[in-house]
Amino acid sequence: MTAAPEYLRIGELAERAGVSVATIKYYIREGILPPPPIKTGRTMGYYDQAYLDRVKTIRVLREEHFLPLRVIRAVLEQRGDAPLAPGEAALLASVAPGVMRRLEAEPEGPITRAALIERFKISGEELELMEEMGLIGDRGEYHRTDEELLEALERAEAAGLTRQRFPVEQLGHYVELIGELARREIRIFTHQAETIPAAEVATLAERAVEASEPVVAVIRRKLILRALRAELDRTTATQKKETP
Amino acid sequence: MTAAPEYLRIGELAERAGVSVATIKYYIREGILPPPPIKTGRTMGYYDQAYLDRVKTIRVLREEHFLPLRVIRAVLEQRGDAPLAPGEAALLASVAPGVMRRLEAEPEGPITRAALIERFKISGEELELMEEMGLIGDRGEYHRTDEELLEALERAEAAGLTRQRFPVEQLGHYVELIGELARREIRIFTHQAETIPAAEVATLAERAVEASEPVVAVIRRKLILRALRAELDRTTATQKKETP
Repeated sequence: MTAAPEYLRIGELAERAGVSVATIKYYIREGILPPPPIKTGRTMGYYDQAYLDRVKTIRVLREEHFLPLRVIRAVLEQRGDAPLAPGEAALLASVAPGVMRRLEAEPEGPITRAALIERFKISGEELELMEEMGLIGDRGEYHRTDEELLEALERAEAAGLTRQRFPVEQLGHYVELIGELARREIRIFTHQAETIPAAEVATLAERAVEASEPVVAVIRRKLILRALRAELDRTTATQKKETP
Repeated sequence: MTAAPEYLRIGELAERAGVSVATIKYYIREGILPPPPIKTGRTMGYYDQAYLDRVKTIRVLREEHFLPLRVIRAVLEQRGDAPLAPGEAALLASVAPGVMRRLEAEPEGPITRAALIERFKISGEELELMEEMGLIGDRGEYHRTDEELLEALERAEAAGLTRQRFPVEQLGHYVELIGELARREIRIFTHQAETIPAAEVATLAERAVEASEPVVAVIRRKLILRALRAELDRTTATQKKETP
């Protein structure tokens, strides 16, 4: 059974995306939205579901993340899921093995599942869930990175962030959001790498993850601060409304 | 102008979400989807746009992030944007000032915009863009965290990740994804904090960001590894298809 593709008029599009018609026309003029897929005028015509999704994404980037238009433009460019261009794919294939060797960081001896369970006082069930989530192990083999993650979780536990309070399932948020970030970081790097001298690319790729780690950590602190303020402002606003 | 809310039959819902009808019924049985908003049977009825968005989200979490259902269930619980419960809001208001003081890390002397530009060889335009993005400054004031971010970017630059190659706009990806992570982390913590002894909560909140930083760093490395493998597999698959 095939549902007929649904086309929306600009008013319906605006209504469903939660923005005004003027806003949509403004985005089209600014080039962060393409012209309507089925045109009846320069900014008039019929819009499809993919278009609606794009307008909603722009709305979230503006209203929840307060990003200016030129940043939104850059962010939208790397969202797609299209295959890499042949040149980019070849470049990635040539640098990836070096990056993977460096990130996997071989352990001193072979690591077994039983040894991880014994050493980190984690249950077999929790370890299995982390394996399913792609956080531990790689096709039945374990690397130094797996020990590092369990060590980091052990230190978090010692600070009071226990697995009993914050179960392993909650790491799904990290897999979703940092996983998406990882995918985009690889694509941005690969896209840009074509303009970098070939002799430099391999070394740069190997260093890039480590070199960007402190950036990620400070950005996270900064955005936690901002989100805290936003929650507090919202709480205050709600209280004011309730007790006028 | 108000567009009439659009309701979909289960076949249309499945088609638009890119899954099978059987999959939707399975999700309803497993409880990760609610029953249809307008019911004509236990799993039959009419579905709205919000429902379609939820099915699409589940599909991404399964097919792109390979998350098992119990993890998807946990992840979906914290996606919403509902105001905090009164108890949670009160708890957040009591611990937030301590966390903010700790994260802001006061500098030794006052920091000015001109001093940042001079010290970090950044253009006024780039600094302004970072301010607009919420990465630098806070209502015209600068804190130690702002210096730390510019220091981290300076080290990344020295490693070859220059702003000329990777312009400031690209940090929008971090704002979007780590910003959303920050929002959820605060909500998960606040929700759980109600079950933690009051004497412990303030200290735990202040320590939580630091204690979880190495976890975030290792998860990122692990997911970059996984995304690299996925890109390589995809490239190989594409090449095979093109040269049979």
